[in-house]
Amino acid sequence: MMRVGIDIGGTKTQAVALADSGEIAASVTLPTMRGEDAVLATTTSSVVALAATAGRELGEFSSIGIGIPGHVDRVGGRVRNAVNLGVRSLELGPALRERFGIPVEIDNDVTAAAAGAAHLMSLSGTVAFLNLGTGLAAGIVVDGVAWRGQAGAAGEIGHLPVDPHGLECPCGQRGCLETIASGAGLRRAWPAGGAHPGRGLVRAMESGDADARRAFEGLVSGAAGCVRILALSIDPQTIVIGGGLSRLGEPLRQALGATLREWSGTSPFIADLKLPERVQFLPENTPAAAVGAALVSRT
Amino acid sequence: MMRVGIDIGGTKTQAVALADSGEIAASVTLPTMRGEDAVLATTTSSVVALAATAGRELGEFSSIGIGIPGHVDRVGGRVRNAVNLGVRSLELGPALRERFGIPVEIDNDVTAAAAGAAHLMSLSGTVAFLNLGTGLAAGIVVDGVAWRGQAGAAGEIGHLPVDPHGLECPCGQRGCLETIASGAGLRRAWPAGGAHPGRGLVRAMESGDADARRAFEGLVSGAAGCVRILALSIDPQTIVIGGGLSRLGEPLRQALGATLREWSGTSPFIADLKLPERVQFLPENTPAAAVGAALVSRT
Repeated sequence: MMRVGIDIGGTKTQAVALADSGEIAASVTLPTMRGEDAVLATTTSSVVALAATAGRELGEFSSIGIGIPGHVDRVGGRVRNAVNLGVRSLELGPALRERFGIPVEIDNDVTAAAAGAAHLMSLSGTVAFLNLGTGLAAGIVVDGVAWRGQAGAAGEIGHLPVDPHGLECPCGQRGCLETIASGAGLRRAWPAGGAHPGRGLVRAMESGDADARRAFEGLVSGAAGCVRILALSIDPQTIVIGGGLSRLGEPLRQALGATLREWSGTSPFIADLKLPERVQFLPENTPAAAVGAALVSRT
Repeated sequence: MMRVGIDIGGTKTQAVALADSGEIAASVTLPTMRGEDAVLATTTSSVVALAATAGRELGEFSSIGIGIPGHVDRVGGRVRNAVNLGVRSLELGPALRERFGIPVEIDNDVTAAAAGAAHLMSLSGTVAFLNLGTGLAAGIVVDGVAWRGQAGAAGEIGHLPVDPHGLECPCGQRGCLETIASGAGLRRAWPAGGAHPGRGLVRAMESGDADARRAFEGLVSGAAGCVRILALSIDPQTIVIGGGLSRLGEPLRQALGATLREWSGTSPFIADLKLPERVQFLPENTPAAAVGAALVSRT
């Protein structure tokens, strides 16, 4: 038997079949289309395509786990207000259960990514996955089990204010970390970067674009702030950095390390936390959320 | 058999004997004296006095748990740099083990208080204990078990900066929550309040002392910030507020509730967290740290 995990993102839907050994037996990527019907159709197609790719019957799949942005009713399987997917309300769990006749569990995509990163990177203990995406949030797993918190808000550190004079945040607060350390934050700080500011940011900064430089510095300082908050609240063994902006790669890695070391130099208290040693980047093209969705579907 | 729990605070040492039922069978309070020898002598006396008060033999005590500020080596039982106690280095665990011949476990006092508060207030799930003391920190327990984190820094939210233009913190950073929401912070903001600014603060504020008012407002906003940080990182069921400054009582409770409701009014995101409903104050004169120390000595 194999478990299916599906990561429904704003641009692509990635599905994996996970063998009992925990290995990825097959994977499929489809473009995500917007709206309730399209999301359901793409998700269904991805499962069928996965069986074909793996050379298996649908009956050999034992469960489906889904990672999706937006408010998720894990028990009922309903997705609400997944804005990036054009979904206002979708009974995704029940629809897939009816179609495939196996258990379906819907989870937050960042929580799923945390579980997948811990599995794929062989990280034990408590792992926080810091998602530098359009938004900013962390997912937490403890020994492979998702830590969701009482209100499902565990790891929602993107909406912690760190500057009373900072920018207004769509959440209604001011100076939230998400206003500087996210794709949405980058677009505000560097409008010239267009809809996908991460792509040209480093080049623009290196050619002397002051807005690009400032946007990058905000991102770095916000991400470092997230690392500090995670260390002084949950205190995980490892903080994995992923999400679209993590593809900034080496420049981001170096700048983040430099900031954390600078803070350690100023504060022995921070130095004791050994933050730089606890940060790892998710390797590129790692289907963490899809794998994690397959894993959490049985916990 | 009974378990002993001892809370060694800056002014008093409180010891309790906990029956197997979890009830407090006896308690003793002695003044704390400064220095390695005095701390050890007072702790030893408190155990002996506890046996006498309970009408028991020392042999009926099965374990000793200690809650103490400062850096604690839980395994070795060594206390280092407990500044308020005048202790630079004390082999407290080994000394007590030798004297009484039973297991001794030393723990951070705020972690112990979290365990004790959860027990005494019958709180299940994840509980954060926010200690508004000379310093500012939270202790975390999950289903009665202490959550210490990888570096023992779980809940150390007092050293999270929330204002780039805030005051310098002794930790080497700037604008830490502890600079506004702690006894040390109050002393800076309201020097006229003397060494124990909590005692006269409300009266001074009500008679129009602007510094006292500002100090109180900083305390309230910092404490509310701690509640928000705990909710958006660990997301506990209950946040218990204790520590010396919690004795400000009703004015603090009301102002904190008002601030959290004001934030909820500005931000639907924050409103969803139902913060005011998750905050409770530790009832006055509750020996949470002593009871918690007795409890964690067996976990």
